[in-house]
Amino acid sequence: MCAIIRALFSLMALIVQKYGGTSVGNPERIRNVARRVLETQQAGNQVIAVVSAMSGVTDNLLKLAKDVSDHPTDREMDVLLSTGEQTTIALTAMAINHLGGRAVSLTGAQAGISTDGVHTKARISTITPKAVQKMLTEGNIVILAGFQGQTSDGQITTLGRGGSDLTAIAMAAAVKADLCQIFTDVDGVFTCDPRVVSVAQKIETISYDEMLEMASSGSKVMQSRSVEFAKKFGVRFEVRNSMNNNPGTLVKEEEPGMESVVVRGVSIERNQAKITIDDVPDRPGIAAKIFGAINRANIVIDMIVQNVSFDGETDISFTLSAADLPKAEAELRKILPELGDSVDLRSQSGIAKLSIVGIGMRSHSGVAARMFSALSDAGINIQMISTSEIKTAVTVNESEIESAARVVHTAFGLDKVA
Amino acid sequence: MCAIIRALFSLMALIVQKYGGTSVGNPERIRNVARRVLETQQAGNQVIAVVSAMSGVTDNLLKLAKDVSDHPTDREMDVLLSTGEQTTIALTAMAINHLGGRAVSLTGAQAGISTDGVHTKARISTITPKAVQKMLTEGNIVILAGFQGQTSDGQITTLGRGGSDLTAIAMAAAVKADLCQIFTDVDGVFTCDPRVVSVAQKIETISYDEMLEMASSGSKVMQSRSVEFAKKFGVRFEVRNSMNNNPGTLVKEEEPGMESVVVRGVSIERNQAKITIDDVPDRPGIAAKIFGAINRANIVIDMIVQNVSFDGETDISFTLSAADLPKAEAELRKILPELGDSVDLRSQSGIAKLSIVGIGMRSHSGVAARMFSALSDAGINIQMISTSEIKTAVTVNESEIESAARVVHTAFGLDKVA
Repeated sequence: MCAIIRALFSLMALIVQKYGGTSVGNPERIRNVARRVLETQQAGNQVIAVVSAMSGVTDNLLKLAKDVSDHPTDREMDVLLSTGEQTTIALTAMAINHLGGRAVSLTGAQAGISTDGVHTKARISTITPKAVQKMLTEGNIVILAGFQGQTSDGQITTLGRGGSDLTAIAMAAAVKADLCQIFTDVDGVFTCDPRVVSVAQKIETISYDEMLEMASSGSKVMQSRSVEFAKKFGVRFEVRNSMNNNPGTLVKEEEPGMESVVVRGVSIERNQAKITIDDVPDRPGIAAKIFGAINRANIVIDMIVQNVSFDGETDISFTLSAADLPKAEAELRKILPELGDSVDLRSQSGIAKLSIVGIGMRSHSGVAARMFSALSDAGINIQMISTSEIKTAVTVNESEIESAARVVHTAFGLDKVA
Repeated sequence: MCAIIRALFSLMALIVQKYGGTSVGNPERIRNVARRVLETQQAGNQVIAVVSAMSGVTDNLLKLAKDVSDHPTDREMDVLLSTGEQTTIALTAMAINHLGGRAVSLTGAQAGISTDGVHTKARISTITPKAVQKMLTEGNIVILAGFQGQTSDGQITTLGRGGSDLTAIAMAAAVKADLCQIFTDVDGVFTCDPRVVSVAQKIETISYDEMLEMASSGSKVMQSRSVEFAKKFGVRFEVRNSMNNNPGTLVKEEEPGMESVVVRGVSIERNQAKITIDDVPDRPGIAAKIFGAINRANIVIDMIVQNVSFDGETDISFTLSAADLPKAEAELRKILPELGDSVDLRSQSGIAKLSIVGIGMRSHSGVAARMFSALSDAGINIQMISTSEIKTAVTVNESEIESAARVVHTAFGLDKVA
């Protein structure tokens, strides 16, 4: 009787977990994931586990595609690649059933994930989680294929990079999950890359905006896209390690107390390059011409700095990935004559970007100054500066990025207390 | 103008082709199939190509399943195995597109193939070929995944052994195809296995019933199930070789002229065994007891012979695969006491079955006698005899099956004229 009353009143949580390709990389790891998922259910929860393709499988499929076609159509790439997750969901469900649990697998299409028709990088339009909810209600663990969906007319689509994270977060929003856990191969989000700053510490809680700035500044725990989706729909999620039981990093909406931390983390991005266009006439339409050319070449640029006009002429600098430098230079040289007679172009590679991120910056003054003086004290020259509301970024010589990260990390009190 | 009139009046044929796992076993072979399919379309036809999983892929998937579970559920096996054909359809469509053709792939579910819910050996219930017809009308070649379908509530199912042949024949019936071609790794159906009877010849035309008897007698070009389906829905199909352009064997409804050939082919089946139950009381219910026990053990038996009763007792003999002999004996020994006191059981392995098949037998007398005398002339002893309307089968010692096949093949005038 007592047990029945407890059961009636206990709050059963609905949890969405996501396991990436490394976490399900071979049968042994799949069995490990199965155990973890089953334990989560046995602790009294309903569980939806989103899984990726086993690591290596996607590469094999890409190789097969290349063996039959130089330019496979995007539609058929989606039909091909979606078999990767379909294989994992079946194996994971089998492994859970083998442990005595009850699991059923669902493809993206079966789970009601509808997308637009942009094959290989589709966007989720709606989720109709009827089948998922029915299976949960029947006592099943639902194993859901990440990265995939279908159009309204039944074509298979995939969601592109970071697609499985997106599946987990979108499904968590659709079923109003109590918690979404993104299992990966690191313990969470750190104040800086621990390979560079050995005293970096795991961040317990971070806001969506900080997470977005960290992601866009080189801390690639997750694609910005999934974080943006989570922010839009208010999905709290935790990034944690599938290989241990350490608590991870909770990513959630901003809360007043969060601002007491001025800088949440330090992010570094290597292999950057800089292009400067000198003596550009300071008149409307010039920037549009420059960045239009860059955009047509499908090159992503990052920091843009334009100096104050002097004598009606100005300099425009921006950073980009060093790999894109030759292409960007070639595109720009084509349009240089349109910009003016004296316009010239300089470029430099071998630079890196250092960013500090924190919503506390908004309410604390002197943050940028403290960063600059820490770098100056270490004798590190700052080349470019760019700021947003919750981020300050600088570029330095690539050879100095590691020591720059360390001194800034220390300057903002982020070092782990030994 | 003339061209337009020709186009308007030309009869565009709708052809369904099926390519098995060996025919699509690697990227090079897939490109070969792609060429063949495209040529068929370019000759002025609409084409639906049904493809199997690449040979070896299914075995790999089965191994993965075994690595995570001793007894994977049938539902998840279907989710897993269906990825094999899905991979092939994408690659085949890519290969055709690469050659400048227009192809789209469809899974069983997308193609409207509905089945019952018996996972791993589902039966097709209905086919709604709307998507297939739409894509054909738009000028596409449709590449269809064999072996799979979905239940009315969206579960993935597979059709079991011979499932891809069945997909082709059922789809051919649903879209009222003009021709269905089953491409395999042999040139067609032969009057006997050419490895045994070197003068065996390819059969040009064979009736459904003859094909069924040939299949059930060891000539495993196709599973009986697909032939039965073709017979039921009147689907003419051609069995031919995917590696050459030789004409194959046309399988179709019986026609008057067909009876002029007395024996269409000679079929052999090795590795057979025989069980005889001696001195069984000749009363109702005895056979049901015996074959009930065999059936519960999931053993398929073949020829059953019961001798005329003598003194109220009789002998019952039947053949089965030698591999099933130990299990069958064990099961039967359990029920022997129920059959009567004097009942005894004998078994023999090392025997083989020789069958002659032909609808001409119905209208020609003396066919069995001619077979027996051919064997007798060659000094080959006949152990058991079993006849149906269009088949006469005997068992002989396995060591004599090849010479038996040769003399019978010659006796019915089936040898190729050199």
